Amino acid sequence: MAGFRHVVVFRWREGATEEQKQTLEDRLNELPGLISELEAYAIGGDAGINPGNFDFAVVADFADRQAYTVYRDHPAHRTVIDECLKPILAERAAVQYEL
Amino acid sequence: MAGFRHVVVFRWREGATEEQKQTLEDRLNELPGLISELEAYAIGGDAGINPGNFDFAVVADFADRQAYTVYRDHPAHRTVIDECLKPILAERAAVQYEL
Repeated sequence: MAGFRHVVVFRWREGATEEQKQTLEDRLNELPGLISELEAYAIGGDAGINPGNFDFAVVADFADRQAYTVYRDHPAHRTVIDECLKPILAERAAVQYEL
Repeated sequence: MAGFRHVVVFRWREGATEEQKQTLEDRLNELPGLISELEAYAIGGDAGINPGNFDFAVVADFADRQAYTVYRDHPAHRTVIDECLKPILAERAAVQYEL
């Protein structure tokens, strides 16, 4: 196994609507078609098994850390963050690590 | 793509030692040999690229949510949590989601 992984979980603001969450999910799922450095991308809402969990996760795999930073700073990604994520974001916890 | 993913990130207490972190990592890496439900397991310390990140991530993949709960509640896993994780844990953020 080799590569570089970006993991981030979010907690939504009270009042975040299902439409806002779905729009974010749809827009994030467009990113693999727009950012070739994204080798694997799996996002999803919490399954509701464990109390105290955050609400949503993104796991993204890259060839290396440089490819991750291309994704991080890519205009298509930044636009989704600004337009769809920030309006509903309460908390964020992230880690990037070598695979 | 199908399956069920467990994502969790941790922040360590001030004073957590490198030895404690390495012991945790070693003990977690034994779990795939002990818990057959673990189909993929990739853990690691934060690469230090982004300020404000958490310190450590675990991403674990399972066939389904029932297999995840076997892992969650498995004595080998609970022992590592009690002996190696809790003593150095400051913050935890987790999501489980359908792949």
